[in-house]
Amino acid sequence: MVKLYSYFRSSAAYRVRIALNYKGVPYEYAAIHLLKDGGQQFSEAFRALNADALVPVLEDEAHLLTQSLAIVEYLEETAPDPPLMPRDVIERAYVRSIASAIACDIHPLNNLRVLRYLVRTLGVSDEQKNAWYRHWVEQGLAALEARLVAEDRSGRFALGDAVTMADVFVVPQIFNAQRMDCSLDEVPTLMRIFSHCMELPAFISAQPSSQPDAE
Amino acid sequence: MVKLYSYFRSSAAYRVRIALNYKGVPYEYAAIHLLKDGGQQFSEAFRALNADALVPVLEDEAHLLTQSLAIVEYLEETAPDPPLMPRDVIERAYVRSIASAIACDIHPLNNLRVLRYLVRTLGVSDEQKNAWYRHWVEQGLAALEARLVAEDRSGRFALGDAVTMADVFVVPQIFNAQRMDCSLDEVPTLMRIFSHCMELPAFISAQPSSQPDAE
Repeated sequence: MVKLYSYFRSSAAYRVRIALNYKGVPYEYAAIHLLKDGGQQFSEAFRALNADALVPVLEDEAHLLTQSLAIVEYLEETAPDPPLMPRDVIERAYVRSIASAIACDIHPLNNLRVLRYLVRTLGVSDEQKNAWYRHWVEQGLAALEARLVAEDRSGRFALGDAVTMADVFVVPQIFNAQRMDCSLDEVPTLMRIFSHCMELPAFISAQPSSQPDAE
Repeated sequence: MVKLYSYFRSSAAYRVRIALNYKGVPYEYAAIHLLKDGGQQFSEAFRALNADALVPVLEDEAHLLTQSLAIVEYLEETAPDPPLMPRDVIERAYVRSIASAIACDIHPLNNLRVLRYLVRTLGVSDEQKNAWYRHWVEQGLAALEARLVAEDRSGRFALGDAVTMADVFVVPQIFNAQRMDCSLDEVPTLMRIFSHCMELPAFISAQPSSQPDAE
């Protein structure tokens, strides 16, 4: 059985949990608390698994896989059914571009380590830190919403009526946005996709509050 | 012929230029100046191509492709020879995780729009801005170096002696690091890979100084 090193609130780990659930791949859950003990991801034991000191890590036999984008692609290649990627090359590029917009343009700016640097090194106030958070989420989601509308490929999900890797990345980002009280009034297409995803067991059981380490 | 909307200094565009060159895909170069005219990426004409207002955009017939990770995967699927991805699934995950570590963990923190927010909205000094830049690059590259050493898969390039998507992402990041005077003494494996890549025409002709819009 594969083993997932995860933190309930990590949105990158949440993506991998959704993909594992959706594909029906059973996994053992190993909790890495990102705040306790000065951050368990910085322990020698965890750094031996991943020098990046980041979750998620997927352990598959002797192999240690890192980076949520790479892990989801790996799951697609090793457990192709049910698929999270369409067959058409243009549609595949579209799906990957949505996942990538979230993973590269929105999420990295609001990582724990970035927020910490703002407060501890640059001395910004809590208010400024929260404004930073909301700025990047709201701007990023607005740009994504505009793309979804312009491309006109969405249905119940980001690409028509089948779940893809795009949805796997959208849902955890919306979860974070809600937790941080970001405005979501301007992104009705993303919220429609989010609602449809949250009707599905794979997404429901992957959510932060359903994890063994939830607080 | 495909058309690439690019800015000579954009490292995301640089990745796509390398991939196009490496695969021998001829392309038309459309320069989008990220600083002139308040940023040409914000023009109505460009936003009609990409609501994200980011380069690169690859135009292939009627299709507009965005996000460098998605574009390189698309090129791999549509112009598979010579390959930028290995065949083995574990090696593929390794290659993607390196590309992703750069695209998701290092580069986004040093984008123009992020540096502007630090200065204009948070009022940090130029010195603090440069320290921020170097902090994320040096920390990110050190983590990547540690992974390359631990995985022990590199040779002339990030995976053995053949160029992959990992190298396509490493080189532009090292270029940026050099331009910003980041310390690179602690990443000898990455620098060895960089040197070997910079012997190849695909990488040389994709570099910022060789672009039609270079300054």
